[in-house]
Amino acid sequence: MIILKLGGSVITRKDAKKPTLNPVNLERIASEIAQAKVEKLVIIHGAGSFGHIDARKYEIGSEIKDEEELAWKKMGFALIQNTVKNLNHFICHFLLNHGIPAIAIPPSSFITSNNKRIKSANLAMVEKYLEMGLVPVLHGDVVPDENDDIQMAVISGDQLVNYLAARLKPERIILGSDVDGIYTCDPKGDSQAELLPVVKSLSDLEFLEGARTVDVTGGMAGKLKELLELAGEGIQSEIINADCEGVLMKALKGEKVNGTIITK
Amino acid sequence: MIILKLGGSVITRKDAKKPTLNPVNLERIASEIAQAKVEKLVIIHGAGSFGHIDARKYEIGSEIKDEEELAWKKMGFALIQNTVKNLNHFICHFLLNHGIPAIAIPPSSFITSNNKRIKSANLAMVEKYLEMGLVPVLHGDVVPDENDDIQMAVISGDQLVNYLAARLKPERIILGSDVDGIYTCDPKGDSQAELLPVVKSLSDLEFLEGARTVDVTGGMAGKLKELLELAGEGIQSEIINADCEGVLMKALKGEKVNGTIITK
Repeated sequence: MIILKLGGSVITRKDAKKPTLNPVNLERIASEIAQAKVEKLVIIHGAGSFGHIDARKYEIGSEIKDEEELAWKKMGFALIQNTVKNLNHFICHFLLNHGIPAIAIPPSSFITSNNKRIKSANLAMVEKYLEMGLVPVLHGDVVPDENDDIQMAVISGDQLVNYLAARLKPERIILGSDVDGIYTCDPKGDSQAELLPVVKSLSDLEFLEGARTVDVTGGMAGKLKELLELAGEGIQSEIINADCEGVLMKALKGEKVNGTIITK
Repeated sequence: MIILKLGGSVITRKDAKKPTLNPVNLERIASEIAQAKVEKLVIIHGAGSFGHIDARKYEIGSEIKDEEELAWKKMGFALIQNTVKNLNHFICHFLLNHGIPAIAIPPSSFITSNNKRIKSANLAMVEKYLEMGLVPVLHGDVVPDENDDIQMAVISGDQLVNYLAARLKPERIILGSDVDGIYTCDPKGDSQAELLPVVKSLSDLEFLEGARTVDVTGGMAGKLKELLELAGEGIQSEIINADCEGVLMKALKGEKVNGTIITK
């Protein structure tokens, strides 16, 4: 079984001011997934511009000061859920068009968190759909949080990768990003940037020039933290460039591609 | 707490050849729900033209003859899930626009059936969202079925009403239909039709002229069966006309409206 994460920056226009799909990438990516013919596959997608705009606006996950703010945040919670549901609908639409029997299992319908970390999540439906030969699709979403001070949290696609991988023990974890992998510094701003074929620790990265830049450009540090936690448990993952034609298909087939392996 | 069912014939163009919303009704209904200011509310909506067309085409719930049919049905299952998700997105959109914090909990993400009847469904998330003051929204959907001969089933909004009402014990159950209630015969075809203010048994109805007609026009017999099962457990429900301006709002507020009460 493979867990494939599709980054929000690949499937949406992440810097758009309103929810904006990247249909060209989605069409190509769905086609590459179909061609790779993976026997058992779980897809997790980010929310990109469909989730981040309102998640920031409503500050989901921050402390709630009074009843007024609580009522406001509840509406934000519901709005975000409906917007990421819409994104998920589009993604499944492209997958279905390429013959992939994609079944959404939105985290908001079965996950609760405690201080923004997944607390309980019954994976029986994910396992059931896998057993049926369908392709479960999860995504970054809002969930109820047990901490009364915040009551609601955003669960990122990367945290879902961490949680599911630790429990479902996939053979491989592939993270489709909009860059080739982890660089010594920001590859979009510095021509001296070098791709790191292997990363073993976040603390290693802190010594690297540009580590802060890496964080700003797409929350790579947050992603890395989730993946290094997994690596610590002996579960290896690979960051590859899903923005670049053919790379995802090759990676799914097990062929060698540029990228960064996160391991212990 | 009130459980409100919105029939597929009210929120969609049920006889359309492709999924077609009824935005005029949806806008009015969302406004009426908002004005009624119900403290605790669960909404269950039908699938209408967003679900029934493909459910019939792929014969979800019928016996699977061979591997080829199984593969075909799996695609149908996934397609239907994505289409009703789209309907749910639109419905939540209208509700949110009227300030109702609607949170979808799709049955396909937490329910399994056995021979087309709900077998297991953990209602913890429904209860959690109610406790948070949000409005859980469920809908007719496809679910995995334990019977190996069929493997997949369609769970109607009416079956969800039955299941949830029996467990959540709402004060009231209101079914918004496109007719005033249960008639002695088809009110759309026979001017002699009389509205039954109370129905206590399906066997009573079989003696009524037009009972078969009732069945054909919108599956009213199937709906009645679910409600009579509930009535047998001492849980009363009301069918009202949500197609008619103001009726739903009055019913939600507890004011007297035309309709049929299903009781024991």
